[in-house]
Amino acid sequence: MSQPPAAPPATIITLTSDFGASVFVGLMKGVILSLCPGARLVDLCHDIAPQDVRGGALVLEQAFPVFPAGTVHLAVVDPGVGTSRRGLAIQALGQLWVGPDNGLFTPVWRTDPQPRAYGLTDTAYFRQPVSQTFHGRDVFAPVAARLAQGLDPARLGPEVRDPLLLDWPRPHQRGQDLLGQVLGADRFGNLLTNLDRLTVEGFLGGRPALVRVAGLKVRGLSRAYGQAAAGQTVALFNSLERLELALNQGDLCAYLGLRPTDLYGLEVVVRVGD
Amino acid sequence: MSQPPAAPPATIITLTSDFGASVFVGLMKGVILSLCPGARLVDLCHDIAPQDVRGGALVLEQAFPVFPAGTVHLAVVDPGVGTSRRGLAIQALGQLWVGPDNGLFTPVWRTDPQPRAYGLTDTAYFRQPVSQTFHGRDVFAPVAARLAQGLDPARLGPEVRDPLLLDWPRPHQRGQDLLGQVLGADRFGNLLTNLDRLTVEGFLGGRPALVRVAGLKVRGLSRAYGQAAAGQTVALFNSLERLELALNQGDLCAYLGLRPTDLYGLEVVVRVGD
Amino acid sequence: MSQPPAAPPATIITLTSDFGASVFVGLMKGVILSLCPGARLVDLCHDIAPQDVRGGALVLEQAFPVFPAGTVHLAVVDPGVGTSRRGLAIQALGQLWVGPDNGLFTPVWRTDPQPRAYGLTDTAYFRQPVSQTFHGRDVFAPVAARLAQGLDPARLGPEVRDPLLLDWPRPHQRGQDLLGQVLGADRFGNLLTNLDRLTVEGFLGGRPALVRVAGLKVRGLSRAYGQAAAGQTVALFNSLERLELALNQGDLCAYLGLRPTDLYGLEVVVRVGD
Repeated sequence: MSQPPAAPPATIITLTSDFGASVFVGLMKGVILSLCPGARLVDLCHDIAPQDVRGGALVLEQAFPVFPAGTVHLAVVDPGVGTSRRGLAIQALGQLWVGPDNGLFTPVWRTDPQPRAYGLTDTAYFRQPVSQTFHGRDVFAPVAARLAQGLDPARLGPEVRDPLLLDWPRPHQRGQDLLGQVLGADRFGNLLTNLDRLTVEGFLGGRPALVRVAGLKVRGLSRAYGQAAAGQTVALFNSLERLELALNQGDLCAYLGLRPTDLYGLEVVVRVGD
Repeated sequence: MSQPPAAPPATIITLTSDFGASVFVGLMKGVILSLCPGARLVDLCHDIAPQDVRGGALVLEQAFPVFPAGTVHLAVVDPGVGTSRRGLAIQALGQLWVGPDNGLFTPVWRTDPQPRAYGLTDTAYFRQPVSQTFHGRDVFAPVAARLAQGLDPARLGPEVRDPLLLDWPRPHQRGQDLLGQVLGADRFGNLLTNLDRLTVEGFLGGRPALVRVAGLKVRGLSRAYGQAAAGQTVALFNSLERLELALNQGDLCAYLGLRPTDLYGLEVVVRVGD
Repeated sequence: MSQPPAAPPATIITLTSDFGASVFVGLMKGVILSLCPGARLVDLCHDIAPQDVRGGALVLEQAFPVFPAGTVHLAVVDPGVGTSRRGLAIQALGQLWVGPDNGLFTPVWRTDPQPRAYGLTDTAYFRQPVSQTFHGRDVFAPVAARLAQGLDPARLGPEVRDPLLLDWPRPHQRGQDLLGQVLGADRFGNLLTNLDRLTVEGFLGGRPALVRVAGLKVRGLSRAYGQAAAGQTVALFNSLERLELALNQGDLCAYLGLRPTDLYGLEVVVRVGD
């Protein structure tokens, strides 16, 4: 007797939001599974600070390299819900994104300069009635479910060529210094920066580094947290290949007295020196 | 060659509890998947305040409209675990609920006045031995798994016609005022009330509204948060079609100095006026 | 027409970490689903305090009795990431474990004294390039995915017979007293101890118990929290069959003014007495 043909793997839908541990995430999942019972749901991160669109974009940036082709990324950090801000579906890099047109998808445009993006205007794909306070449930979740079932995103609405993009800081040189900035901190209190390995190593050309941020000086780049003694500071390239500052087995943010709202935009200076 | 018949979609089991981010949720999932390997597990909300049965009921109320027929809702907010309080399985509205008989399922009775409810008395459906501190793992999770596999809930125990129901506040008029109350706040610090759109719009009859709560006055009803400037207060009907008070792009609870324990029962007054 | 043969249930992969609500968990899931699209992913607990290897071990200890044979447990509490600490895959009790060799898997050795453990040395099973700060994504997740697909763990690297094991405190007698210690607290502020039911009941031999911890005295053992009035202390055997101290419907840790870092190792004294 022959084997039945294997079912194709179910489409993955990731979910990202500023909904925290609230029920809103579960409600979006109910809508998705009602429309696309076979979808694989994966929470990316719901711990984005309320209304922190940039924080959501930083999460999305980390995700697409590790998910398979065809993944649909549903992202809802949406302070403009119910206003005239557009909804978007984006096709790029073999994956799909759905959410508000407020800069959340800036990393997609930074990685693929010519994605196909469509405004969400055809209300036939929405859950009715559409509330003006929760498009995650009524607009974005149903659209994500339909994309996961193979709907052509071009059916959703007109092509969008002028998305709202966030200003995305790039490192630059000033005199003898390479200047970058802090993007945020992770769960462990490590400081994340926009200084990528290629830029930093190109700048250093094999010479030793001195890194300064928020009054702190770190000498040399390490390969791993554990190269420093417990409680000592280290600078290293993290899993995104970006410069990160850490306190081995400690919380650098707490050590420096930095609050979450202090972090974004803090200047990071890399200099050649011992 | 013919397509194999599609497998029926797996039954969804939602999980709601006051277990927070602890391992207790994962343990219930292990029990469920041991008994019903094909179940689709969806976390609704585990961030209910410890022992807050009403908070759990408010979460369950939001969920059933968005989940498909056949969904099993497992809910464990259970301060009376190990005492004589009963366990329940409820069949209503094409869905099923499992958990303690302590008022958690009040919204089911409010929506379907004649659900079929059964006490959980047949210990053959429990995990053995049954601990007296964690019926979520030993009683409710295994029962939910068996219901997901098609067990007739009438097999679980005797029919229950006198469930414990929470007092559920309804809006009412006092003189010229429509009176409601705050039920709680969401992740964003928005105040949720028991004033539904139908009641409020019927009361107003097209006239302008003045809403007061906790010393705050809000003039007019908005369609969306973003109709107010950032940092301004709005009153609007939320995704549950209930009156909500918010600070656009801010946290109204923090602004008013309200702590979580201050919220439930705060009076909300709607009056006709500019 | 005959039914198609039922597919075997998908392998479960549980995830445990100190990553909290951050994106790191979602990234590990993306890696797993890219390699093993059919895996069933279950979060056990990500709320382990940063670098708290013992806390992770206590979570893993609770999980294996409730998960089915074949389950793969991926656990990442990994302060030594990027240093010379080994990675391990362990086969025991019909289940599998993957993570760093830092004591996290001590409960496996306590339960099965002769597990098969293998060092993770064959880099062909890793995600490339391997970052030195996130082996969860680049080493442990891909190895877990491959084990879930049936890879023989012996293929991963050499057998390990000298794993790093945590000191695991056992109760002991001192004069008339049975001495144990606090292991931690749960979500509800209940104090968990290392005093198992068998040891305590053997010590008491049916006589009444007086339990003391942190200046608190509790008389008698209860069957359930609700045997005490709300706000009263109880001592009982919890869902792990270990002695637990609780404040019925309250938070004992808060009541005693204990902070999380105060808990581990606090002496618990059981004496015969009224």
